[in-house]
Amino acid sequence: MKLNLMDKHQEVLDKAVQALHERTFFAHYPENPLPDVYGENADKEGREKYKEHLNNNFTELLQQDPAAWVGQEESPYEQQALGVKYPYFDPETLVNRAEEAYHQWRKVKPADRAALLVEALENIKPRFFEIAYATMHTTGQAYLMSFQASGPHAADRALEAIASGYEEQTRFPESTEWEKPMGKYNLKLNKSWRAVPKGVALVIGCSTFPTWNTVPGMFASLVTGNPVIVKPHPKAVLPIAIVVAEVQKVLQENGLDPNICQLGVDADDKLITKDLAEHPKVKLIDYTGGTEFGNYVESLPGKTTFTEKTGVNSIILDSVDDLDKVAQNLAFSVTLYSGQMCTAPQNFYVPETGIKVGGETVPYEDVVEKIAGAVTALVNNPKAAPHILGAIQNPATAERVKSASSVKGREVLSTCDFENPMFSNARTCTPVIYEVDATEKESYSRELFGPVVLIIKTKNTEQSIEIAKTMAMSHGAISCGAYTTDPAVKEKIMDEMGLAGTPVSFNLTGNIYVNQNASFSDFHVTGGNPAGNASFTNPEFVIKRFTWVGFREPAMG
Amino acid sequence: MKLNLMDKHQEVLDKAVQALHERTFFAHYPENPLPDVYGENADKEGREKYKEHLNNNFTELLQQDPAAWVGQEESPYEQQALGVKYPYFDPETLVNRAEEAYHQWRKVKPADRAALLVEALENIKPRFFEIAYATMHTTGQAYLMSFQASGPHAADRALEAIASGYEEQTRFPESTEWEKPMGKYNLKLNKSWRAVPKGVALVIGCSTFPTWNTVPGMFASLVTGNPVIVKPHPKAVLPIAIVVAEVQKVLQENGLDPNICQLGVDADDKLITKDLAEHPKVKLIDYTGGTEFGNYVESLPGKTTFTEKTGVNSIILDSVDDLDKVAQNLAFSVTLYSGQMCTAPQNFYVPETGIKVGGETVPYEDVVEKIAGAVTALVNNPKAAPHILGAIQNPATAERVKSASSVKGREVLSTCDFENPMFSNARTCTPVIYEVDATEKESYSRELFGPVVLIIKTKNTEQSIEIAKTMAMSHGAISCGAYTTDPAVKEKIMDEMGLAGTPVSFNLTGNIYVNQNASFSDFHVTGGNPAGNASFTNPEFVIKRFTWVGFREPAMG
Repeated sequence: MKLNLMDKHQEVLDKAVQALHERTFFAHYPENPLPDVYGENADKEGREKYKEHLNNNFTELLQQDPAAWVGQEESPYEQQALGVKYPYFDPETLVNRAEEAYHQWRKVKPADRAALLVEALENIKPRFFEIAYATMHTTGQAYLMSFQASGPHAADRALEAIASGYEEQTRFPESTEWEKPMGKYNLKLNKSWRAVPKGVALVIGCSTFPTWNTVPGMFASLVTGNPVIVKPHPKAVLPIAIVVAEVQKVLQENGLDPNICQLGVDADDKLITKDLAEHPKVKLIDYTGGTEFGNYVESLPGKTTFTEKTGVNSIILDSVDDLDKVAQNLAFSVTLYSGQMCTAPQNFYVPETGIKVGGETVPYEDVVEKIAGAVTALVNNPKAAPHILGAIQNPATAERVKSASSVKGREVLSTCDFENPMFSNARTCTPVIYEVDATEKESYSRELFGPVVLIIKTKNTEQSIEIAKTMAMSHGAISCGAYTTDPAVKEKIMDEMGLAGTPVSFNLTGNIYVNQNASFSDFHVTGGNPAGNASFTNPEFVIKRFTWVGFREPAMG
Repeated sequence: MKLNLMDKHQEVLDKAVQALHERTFFAHYPENPLPDVYGENADKEGREKYKEHLNNNFTELLQQDPAAWVGQEESPYEQQALGVKYPYFDPETLVNRAEEAYHQWRKVKPADRAALLVEALENIKPRFFEIAYATMHTTGQAYLMSFQASGPHAADRALEAIASGYEEQTRFPESTEWEKPMGKYNLKLNKSWRAVPKGVALVIGCSTFPTWNTVPGMFASLVTGNPVIVKPHPKAVLPIAIVVAEVQKVLQENGLDPNICQLGVDADDKLITKDLAEHPKVKLIDYTGGTEFGNYVESLPGKTTFTEKTGVNSIILDSVDDLDKVAQNLAFSVTLYSGQMCTAPQNFYVPETGIKVGGETVPYEDVVEKIAGAVTALVNNPKAAPHILGAIQNPATAERVKSASSVKGREVLSTCDFENPMFSNARTCTPVIYEVDATEKESYSRELFGPVVLIIKTKNTEQSIEIAKTMAMSHGAISCGAYTTDPAVKEKIMDEMGLAGTPVSFNLTGNIYVNQNASFSDFHVTGGNPAGNASFTNPEFVIKRFTWVGFREPAMG
């Protein structure tokens, strides 16, 4: 390599590996868009750079000879096309170039790959604001979430994958002398091992978190020596295109083939994901998105897949200290990015007998009212609401929220009179709340993507737990929030939701929400239920991307 | 637990974990059946105990209320029934009992599970000789292999799985305090994690290595908290029945349900493997055996599978120092247990231009003759041959060897005039060697189980490597032996066979053979080609058996 990148980045890699195991707070990229961290004009310059992309060709990629220039992005805030055009390559070209690059990339040592990828993240860091605006105007996220999720949080998740891949590939010795006592003599073999990467990797992005959900698989495959084709959602390309471009630049600067990491966008009239996914040379697939396509990906023969699909997330209400604080916390969770997070709660289980609040029983109806009231107060707060709700990425989501006619229940809170003061044309809606009886399984047995809350009236907490567990095991779940002051109930919830592979946040109030997952501490998705078969970033997430192969030979003399 | 087993076994567990990472020689169970290690009368008593089982019910298992007593074993040495009968339980009973035991076993701490399983191995150790005779008379292995493979080597592979599972489950903290600086205050969460076992595990054994190929999956599932149903091959039950019985005794002694580890044998008129494998409650399946059934196992939806199927193992001959020593080494490898090892070589690639021997070219024909000569000399050595060849487990194998009519090539060495001096009725055959042209792909593109050697005439070493690699990628391979004195050729073989997920032994001569794999050092099967999707014991072999689930709650104060 041109520079001794391993010297430069060894410390951060070591710290990141340590953080993976301590699982205490660790962030290499500051999450607040502060001028004294990112520079006085960073925000302004980022916005300007974002605007320069509009109605232009994205020419930063180092991939040669595109067959066409394509682009379908549209801002949920302005409801008009971004007009950015990306180079299009047919799937065969992408795969052949990846295959060629594979034989160069796989021979780079794991430690050098890791250092090179950290270098790329460091080069992406000055572009966090530009990526933030690109994220706002493709996903509809509010400004702060756009910055944090697509910038520092995504970069830390990428670093996490790099660190884990680096650790796993260096966990066994490169070589050793094996010496076996045979009685009269010792049998000596020189042994060595290689972590052989599996081959061409495909990473299929989603429309709501174009970098956050893409970089873990992308960097995990790269650090383990696999060339990557990033296939973004056609409506959310720009944020990840910038990331790919920066990786390509570092590769080229270090004398490597930029096709080690390619962007493969859909043509305007042709979706290429299935062609790529089914290509025999594609060995690894990371996927984030809907369950139906995710199941298709998982079913493809001869592929190692890493999926995050959809789930039915739950809130279990048993007993609390302060119901107002709980209601406010939950109101924020369902309002944040208008419920378009994979971790957003949907099914709230409340016993018909009410819940204990500081020792007193509060009736079921009052609990429902408190929650509805907290959501109403939040969405009616003009200083807070626009920065929390953001906009709706997909018109179909807004439609679904407005006409959730398949839910058999009483509408407790209706939706969608929200106007964004900064973007008069923004596609928005506020949370809708339905009250559903526990017997109406059909209504609550699937994900209703977007700001839809179902309050499910159960017999008691035991039934709440039982249903939440069954839902998670049958339909998947990525998060569960539980409120109880009873240690025995807490243990029961941990035990039962643990069996359903669902992490549980207990008794959250204040500025911490069930939706949020911290890199280097919270495993995101467990892989243990139908919401997905992979987890950011447990060892399985990286070790399935390579094969340990051993070699041995008698030692001389 | 009744005893403080963790104190008792902590040292061996720590040593085993260390050995996994150093990958130098480590064996906890001595491989030689020496009186001063195992006791003066150990062999005699083992043989007597084996004989006591014959024509008797196997009553050691602690499983209650069998539906019948069944057994179909037959000695390949005596070609008559053993007459041992085992308790039969229908699949539903086995699964329900396992499911019930699951909820007890999963709550035992990983360290305690590990200690308890080491205790079981220690109790199995005094029965190695009894297991050896049981192995001889079910598999046809010779005495020494029966002792080593089913006794100490199997126990060390089991210990390896226990150690790896123990390490992986304790690799992340049980709990930690997560503290995030928020500017004016710190956000504090108490976090904890649990390694949640996946559920009922099934381990499907094979007829040739009834303990060695069964214990890794069995102990890997057990140490990670999953109840196990061991489903042995109906022709090779006794060796593993003894192992299961000893595990059950330790469980019961420690106040645990013996159904945590059950033996599930086929009825005489009904095979139960598919019923068990397809049962929705069965989550994990380990399998050793033929490719067709293995592919069926891998295809089952909703299961995590670990397979070892069949492969086409190769020998690449390029250049050697001493052709006689090489030929003797290879002759032993193909003769050992009459080629019934999954690691036995089958396809020998020899260039038509001959190979270099100490700088001189030896013609192709002479190389073939040397190999055939070495095999002939070995099988005609009455002191050695019976102890190497053993007997043929399955009559179909002997049939196949005698009439390998599908091989289009010249028979270089014919088979099967071997008489075992100790067992006049033994089912035996010696290796057959065919010479096949590289163009006759059909002939050498599949495993010909048993002592069948194909010498494939290639254009040059480059073609030898290319075919060996293609065979491994298309049809699987578990081992490759290569002979070259040229460092560039060696690197090319490592690189190409590495891509095919095939370990390579270079230049073996003397008392070390391509068939042999050492616990704690050689990964057995890589999982990187169609010969199997799992590896003894890489981290993947254990971590796929449980799910990391996290819990968090605001810290008080």
